[in-house]
Amino acid sequence: MKASEIAEFLGAELSGDGDVNIERVAALATASTGDIAFVDKADGEVQSNASCLIVPFAFSADAARPAIRTADPKLAFARVAGVLNPRSKKTPMIHRSALVRESVNVADDAFVGPFVCVDENSSIGPGTQISAGSIVGKNVSIGSNCTLHFNVVIEDNCTIGDNVILHSGVVVGADGFGFVPDENNTQHKFPQIGTVVIENDVEIGANSCVDRGALGETRVGAGTKIDNLVQVAHNVQIGKRVIIAAQTGISGSTIIEDDCVIGGQVGMGDHATVKSGAVIGSQAGVLPGKIVRRGVWWGTPVQPLDEYKVQNANVKGLSRLKQRIKELEAELDKLKGSNGRSLAE
Amino acid sequence: MKASEIAEFLGAELSGDGDVNIERVAALATASTGDIAFVDKADGEVQSNASCLIVPFAFSADAARPAIRTADPKLAFARVAGVLNPRSKKTPMIHRSALVRESVNVADDAFVGPFVCVDENSSIGPGTQISAGSIVGKNVSIGSNCTLHFNVVIEDNCTIGDNVILHSGVVVGADGFGFVPDENNTQHKFPQIGTVVIENDVEIGANSCVDRGALGETRVGAGTKIDNLVQVAHNVQIGKRVIIAAQTGISGSTIIEDDCVIGGQVGMGDHATVKSGAVIGSQAGVLPGKIVRRGVWWGTPVQPLDEYKVQNANVKGLSRLKQRIKELEAELDKLKGSNGRSLAE
Amino acid sequence: MKASEIAEFLGAELSGDGDVNIERVAALATASTGDIAFVDKADGEVQSNASCLIVPFAFSADAARPAIRTADPKLAFARVAGVLNPRSKKTPMIHRSALVRESVNVADDAFVGPFVCVDENSSIGPGTQISAGSIVGKNVSIGSNCTLHFNVVIEDNCTIGDNVILHSGVVVGADGFGFVPDENNTQHKFPQIGTVVIENDVEIGANSCVDRGALGETRVGAGTKIDNLVQVAHNVQIGKRVIIAAQTGISGSTIIEDDCVIGGQVGMGDHATVKSGAVIGSQAGVLPGKIVRRGVWWGTPVQPLDEYKVQNANVKGLSRLKQRIKELEAELDKLKGSNGRSLAE
Repeated sequence: MKASEIAEFLGAELSGDGDVNIERVAALATASTGDIAFVDKADGEVQSNASCLIVPFAFSADAARPAIRTADPKLAFARVAGVLNPRSKKTPMIHRSALVRESVNVADDAFVGPFVCVDENSSIGPGTQISAGSIVGKNVSIGSNCTLHFNVVIEDNCTIGDNVILHSGVVVGADGFGFVPDENNTQHKFPQIGTVVIENDVEIGANSCVDRGALGETRVGAGTKIDNLVQVAHNVQIGKRVIIAAQTGISGSTIIEDDCVIGGQVGMGDHATVKSGAVIGSQAGVLPGKIVRRGVWWGTPVQPLDEYKVQNANVKGLSRLKQRIKELEAELDKLKGSNGRSLAE
Repeated sequence: MKASEIAEFLGAELSGDGDVNIERVAALATASTGDIAFVDKADGEVQSNASCLIVPFAFSADAARPAIRTADPKLAFARVAGVLNPRSKKTPMIHRSALVRESVNVADDAFVGPFVCVDENSSIGPGTQISAGSIVGKNVSIGSNCTLHFNVVIEDNCTIGDNVILHSGVVVGADGFGFVPDENNTQHKFPQIGTVVIENDVEIGANSCVDRGALGETRVGAGTKIDNLVQVAHNVQIGKRVIIAAQTGISGSTIIEDDCVIGGQVGMGDHATVKSGAVIGSQAGVLPGKIVRRGVWWGTPVQPLDEYKVQNANVKGLSRLKQRIKELEAELDKLKGSNGRSLAE
Repeated sequence: MKASEIAEFLGAELSGDGDVNIERVAALATASTGDIAFVDKADGEVQSNASCLIVPFAFSADAARPAIRTADPKLAFARVAGVLNPRSKKTPMIHRSALVRESVNVADDAFVGPFVCVDENSSIGPGTQISAGSIVGKNVSIGSNCTLHFNVVIEDNCTIGDNVILHSGVVVGADGFGFVPDENNTQHKFPQIGTVVIENDVEIGANSCVDRGALGETRVGAGTKIDNLVQVAHNVQIGKRVIIAAQTGISGSTIIEDDCVIGGQVGMGDHATVKSGAVIGSQAGVLPGKIVRRGVWWGTPVQPLDEYKVQNANVKGLSRLKQRIKELEAELDKLKGSNGRSLAE
């Protein structure tokens, strides 16, 4: 791709030689000839061997090199990467070692890798790639252009949309965690016979788990991105374009509305609701049933970030506060003494 | 099953037509003909197409529909689900792609799925199902009627009881985490050559880990239920009927006695003891060596819930406390001034 | 091995019969004839059937039994275990069910187990064992004497050193978690096309994840030990001889220098730096960009342990502090009253 073609693809302005060939995206510092890199800041010198840069409008340095100017260089870079470094496309096939039931509908240009099992009545859409060691249960529908990395598990009756990426070790559709104790505290399994729906353009990180609904469904909305080792419990409803960082856990029936951003290691109790656009900081804790409104939240139990900061400063100031109280007590004692004297006079 | 038969199975009283056929359990809102659902509250209208309801004794509405009255409708519902929706029973077989060593004892009606490996001298009890991609090491004993979901790993020398459910991606018997530094801080592996014993009726959630004992054993007691992504370290002893929610981590040699309830994302230091009947709230932290008595515990480090609540309120009240101290200081200043004046008069 | 040979191997002094045969390491309490065990304390009676003990220099009891005296009995015991209980060595082979591409270089005495896949242009060093169900991508280099347990995944272009142990379910080289939102909050995948380098003598626990660099590399330094269910994000740089306990999560581009000790369930924001020799307590939280100096750190956000303790005591003392303020207010009121009187007189 020529630099000018990339500029055109981005709908952005190019300065310098538009004919240089760009083959790869690369980091600024390690880029070499044929690479395109991006610069986040408008000023400062740039040390790079990249053949072309994506830069902010106000970028001034480095006038000689071909540069594409845009409001959001990182976004532009990501878009270019999607074109220059697309998902590696495997030759469509069903590997001879794969076990695919006769009743399964595999699209012609899908890839089913070694040691993959696909059970009865499931379907695999066009362009979808299921990598080695992955298991697909019964009555599972997988849309088009999905990528299942290695050793992924999708249990019976789950539905996966289009362009979904499941990283290695993901488990979709394991039983939710529901037990009812009897009078001897013996735990009786509450039925976990619902389903999971993963909508289009979702990405789920390595070794994360999305449990099936107990009686209803667990749903991950379109365009939502989930990091590694995340736990999504039964009947959770996650909206669209939600970001959930690593090791966060979401308890049963909790609702996360569209466009929320959830940090890492956040814990959410059951039946909570996180309203659209809320941002929850890492390690925060949301109590069961809590409603978290739009805004930035922090701490356990979560509170608005501003309140959290005041509270944190208050706690840090406690030693000085104690000192002030001690001084007050001393002064008061003195005063009582002098007052006593004044009374006595 | 007829409604009357379900009532009889539960030892509960039926009102209405006992002859209706019940085929499935279902959620109240989505139930249809042939379904049985349960109602938790005694009052309020019920919108449901269920053919039969399990209701509390005091339930008054909906007199026309067949209803089974019981003290704990949710428990009764779970029990009925165990009968109407039993574990799916696979046709006993050893799949032709499975690798089972000659010395392995596989019961006649066990199921060993595709790409399963079972190594030397292990045994698999009657009715046990080992799903695709699971690996069983050497000298592993698995009891009867167990279900290993997909890609489960049980390493050498571990013992699994009867009716145990291991969800996809569970790892039982990985090495514990034990190293001894020398004078150069090079870490020498402490031997991890013990075992794991999982007693009867245990269920362990997807991608959870139970490490083998260093020299002794790690044990999970009968009837204990463990959620997804939980870490159980070497030599941990978990009692019977314990509930452990997702992403909790239990460090080495810690003891959790019978009937405890541990929330999600709880962290326990090593050599702690959680006494029988203790309840520990989500995200709590138990210090190494700590003894947690019966009762409800919260926070890091854990404290009794009542104390935690007072402390939390105290912290939230700090801004007002600071204000009161400021006022005290001002009043004292005024008083010193007036007192000065009074002394001068 | 004779007791005298073990003493010689350790460079330590032996008392008692040096000719007893030692076959295994064992725990003190459960040891029997042929076992060697260790004692941590210098005094107190020892109840053990071990044939030989490793004891501190000051150890006085149990004079009859062969004893090896050393400054650090636990370390000596670990070293002996490395000799008496070495890693189980499998017969070198490529299992007939394994799928190894022609272009792969497998050393003669490596073991490639059942249902293992090794993709193009990868290499597997001498003495390395890849257990059943593990997947190795393209252009992966694995050094000598490594052990990959079951169902391990190493994705394309990663490099693994010598003597590395990856426990079951580990995922090395999954995509990092990086997305750039556009004006509609649609999340565009930032390229995750870097690599992972795992240096020599690293051990990584079950179901842990080490993501590939976005554009550069993620690195785990020589001799570092990582527990189960740990998340290492893209571009993280972990130094040598670092200890990281279970369920800790390290966000993108964070640096952990040599010889640090990180507790369990610690969360680190991105672009933080943990300086060499720092110790971070369990469940601590390190804010993005934070520099954590040598020393012991605790809490969220992390602070020096001493400060944390003071702060924790301050918070616990808040009820008493409130009481003192109440008393001050009452006394001040009284004083104002009496002062008023004194003024009136």
